[in-house]
Amino acid sequence: MNHTGSQIIGNSFSAEGDHTFQAFDPQRQEWLPQTFREATPGEIDQAVNLAAQAFEQYKKVPAKQRAAFLLAIADGIAALGDELPQTASAESGLPLARLHGERDRTTGQLRLFANLITEGSWVNARIDKATPDVRQMQIPVGVIGIFGASNFPLAFSVAGGDTAAALAAGCTVVFKAHPAHPHTSHLVAGVIRTAANNTGMPEGVFSLLHGATVETGQQLAVHPRLSAIAFTGSFRGGKALYETATRRAVPIPVYAEMGSVNPVFFLPGILKEKGEALATQFLQSLTMGVGQFCTNPGVFVAPAEDNTFITALQNGIGNMTGGFMLTPSILTAYNSGISGLQQAGAQLLGKAADKGQQATPYLLQVSAAQALEDPSLCHEVFGPSSLHIRADSKEELYKLANGLEGQLTATVHGTEEDLREHAELINILREKAGRIIINGFPTGVAVNHAMVHGGPWPATTPAAGTSVGTAAIYRFCRPVCFQDFPAYLLPPELQDENPMGIWRLLNGNFSKDAC
Amino acid sequence: MNHTGSQIIGNSFSAEGDHTFQAFDPQRQEWLPQTFREATPGEIDQAVNLAAQAFEQYKKVPAKQRAAFLLAIADGIAALGDELPQTASAESGLPLARLHGERDRTTGQLRLFANLITEGSWVNARIDKATPDVRQMQIPVGVIGIFGASNFPLAFSVAGGDTAAALAAGCTVVFKAHPAHPHTSHLVAGVIRTAANNTGMPEGVFSLLHGATVETGQQLAVHPRLSAIAFTGSFRGGKALYETATRRAVPIPVYAEMGSVNPVFFLPGILKEKGEALATQFLQSLTMGVGQFCTNPGVFVAPAEDNTFITALQNGIGNMTGGFMLTPSILTAYNSGISGLQQAGAQLLGKAADKGQQATPYLLQVSAAQALEDPSLCHEVFGPSSLHIRADSKEELYKLANGLEGQLTATVHGTEEDLREHAELINILREKAGRIIINGFPTGVAVNHAMVHGGPWPATTPAAGTSVGTAAIYRFCRPVCFQDFPAYLLPPELQDENPMGIWRLLNGNFSKDAC
Repeated sequence: MNHTGSQIIGNSFSAEGDHTFQAFDPQRQEWLPQTFREATPGEIDQAVNLAAQAFEQYKKVPAKQRAAFLLAIADGIAALGDELPQTASAESGLPLARLHGERDRTTGQLRLFANLITEGSWVNARIDKATPDVRQMQIPVGVIGIFGASNFPLAFSVAGGDTAAALAAGCTVVFKAHPAHPHTSHLVAGVIRTAANNTGMPEGVFSLLHGATVETGQQLAVHPRLSAIAFTGSFRGGKALYETATRRAVPIPVYAEMGSVNPVFFLPGILKEKGEALATQFLQSLTMGVGQFCTNPGVFVAPAEDNTFITALQNGIGNMTGGFMLTPSILTAYNSGISGLQQAGAQLLGKAADKGQQATPYLLQVSAAQALEDPSLCHEVFGPSSLHIRADSKEELYKLANGLEGQLTATVHGTEEDLREHAELINILREKAGRIIINGFPTGVAVNHAMVHGGPWPATTPAAGTSVGTAAIYRFCRPVCFQDFPAYLLPPELQDENPMGIWRLLNGNFSKDAC
Repeated sequence: MNHTGSQIIGNSFSAEGDHTFQAFDPQRQEWLPQTFREATPGEIDQAVNLAAQAFEQYKKVPAKQRAAFLLAIADGIAALGDELPQTASAESGLPLARLHGERDRTTGQLRLFANLITEGSWVNARIDKATPDVRQMQIPVGVIGIFGASNFPLAFSVAGGDTAAALAAGCTVVFKAHPAHPHTSHLVAGVIRTAANNTGMPEGVFSLLHGATVETGQQLAVHPRLSAIAFTGSFRGGKALYETATRRAVPIPVYAEMGSVNPVFFLPGILKEKGEALATQFLQSLTMGVGQFCTNPGVFVAPAEDNTFITALQNGIGNMTGGFMLTPSILTAYNSGISGLQQAGAQLLGKAADKGQQATPYLLQVSAAQALEDPSLCHEVFGPSSLHIRADSKEELYKLANGLEGQLTATVHGTEEDLREHAELINILREKAGRIIINGFPTGVAVNHAMVHGGPWPATTPAAGTSVGTAAIYRFCRPVCFQDFPAYLLPPELQDENPMGIWRLLNGNFSKDAC
């Protein structure tokens, strides 16, 4: 029997529902034949209850065994070979080369979290030996409901960063697959199921639910045994989950990454020095992946009178071609976003040639005064368009920066003289974004210890989280304090002898010593 | 001119409003003569705007100068001499000895945070030297609205733990004083005002607002330039602020500590060994401060048939006396809480003698079945009462533990044999509370690095925060990532040379080295 269209609840396949949906192949412009069943309320309930039961076991699994589980997932994903990128490419329209890279990023993330928990210091053990004796560490919060993104069918999807962080922390996961790539999701969930069995994890540590409707996601979000939600996607989708979760009888945190316009500021000196090269690099960042990145530079601020840069942008975009977007509805939203900006008074600065069902890269332009007056001009249009805000004075630059909503990133291009002259700009941008980039581009998010992929509302909620990098694990934890515990009841991380050899804060000082 | 009844907005005293209120002296059972003016919407707006302006300066003040500010506050509080505890005692009914101790705790907290930021490693610097070069640290979020608690007129009030943590982080503060101790609040705010001036802090780094109505607090909570809220008080009050803050156009986090019933489990072996001594200690913990602690043990679970312990409790409470509560409305709520429990079927186990306007310590009793059936029996009744839940089997104990709502603390008393036998009880309680105590009592919260004063809803929101101890500082921060920054733009904490000599995570390894 073909289980491809079913939910994967623990070890079982479940196909209770009557509502089905299909994925779309953007390259071929046709619906793919495989049908997927929308999860029923009963299946959602079953998955979360099983995950809650599994949590009782999984939270006790030693870190090294959880690490083995993560590594087995990474190995299993690699072992799928070409089937995985090919399936993802058919469902997303993204090119194979990109998906090979994204697969490696996905397995790399899993291995990074495996290393993190094997080393063990991430639990932030704190010991105050006094009367009373108190010891603190981070513990997992429970069952996490994770909502995959459309634009990264691997790295921000079923076995993506959120899942890796949650499983690493010791939480169990109920994953709501994005309906744009259900077959890809099915393949990866199958890998997780096998890895869980092969490494002896409790059944239900991970389940996969399909759904193309808002209701399915909402039913998951209100389940009383859910402890937190992670989401990557649109502002509308993230906000709806946030509202639902905060209105529950027992509210739970929602870690929603809702994107932003990632403003790029070009200062005058550097434009004179290398305006043409910057134009080329900017257009590359703008149109990479058909502009379908959360960190896509949707707004840039540059003087009006610098013709080299602007002319190079106009020439450059005129010679570009479009690309297929992830789904027909994303293309529709992109086109209506462009029209909306033009209706709101943005002028056409340049565009690529129109090409059938592909998204056309656009550059639009407004004055600083227009941008300051109408904040909706700086709302995200997901895709390969960017809005040039003309700003000629430092005063205008600072006003524009101060007027920004919360962002994932903010970028400044400048010579040393520019940057020293505009130091206050960077001070302002610190309050607006989770990541500030100097002389680079926001697309491309390194997965390491220092990365922040998050930012003030409406970029994410809450601003204190990151969904990329090892610090992402803390979203799924809370501190617990053990007071006057006898040694035999303490978790190993907090025992006097420090059997795990981790860094701990002993009476306020970092140390690997016993105490 | 007497400014005692005014708001303190930066350096100015403001008395715009017409609505006034007075504090009550519980010992003398009379209203105190001084009137205080409820802050007007204009004054609230002015205070927050000034705090937002001050933040632009204050966030750049080096940590050592912020530390000097905190130390100057501590010194100023100490220098108030007897006036402060006397004023607090008149407004709260709390004895002078307790208030001397609370004052020392308050100055100790300020000094602890001064030390923390002087040392500097708390910023969690993370550096990944690679391409790109990314560096992360915690930065302050902005203006914090803090709501003082009634039950700690010093340590959880104007210069209490929340204020110390927020100012240490680099945030500015608008403090809404608790209307039960406005004069105490005025004295301490005056100290902060003087300390800010003497250490060169920007005007508006701290402001004090008075108010006895819900509206004043709500007006503060919706102010667009507020970045976060900290609150200590009732579930109703905390929940109202949480709802307001999450429904704003730009939602902000609310760190509300809303109390709990802090269940204490007495296991059979230890009751046989020292039931009488435990009864005495329990009653001490229950009635300390007239039971007006967030960590007061409002519920305890013990076998029904252990007559030594229960008899000692009954005898003990019969010989106790009551005490004056903080305010008449708290006494009214206490008395109606007791009636409510009795109407819901709780039996009287024992009580102190009634004594006029004082709160009478109470012990009530229900069966495990009753408690499991009616969760409202385990809702907090603020004051010196506790509910005995009779449980004779391990099965009942575990069911009761599993049925608990989120708690600040959970306590287990047992011999080594008891504890080994009931290891699963501690496993369950880890999911329910922020602090687990073995063979101790929940009252008394040590202020250090490892303390957690927080817990799952409804104890606090969110569960990941603590409002006591140095980790409290993280509630007022968020991480920001600096990508490819030239050295001259990096904050000192992230510069290669490590000029501050702090611990940093260099490519994943803790180190104080340069990089």
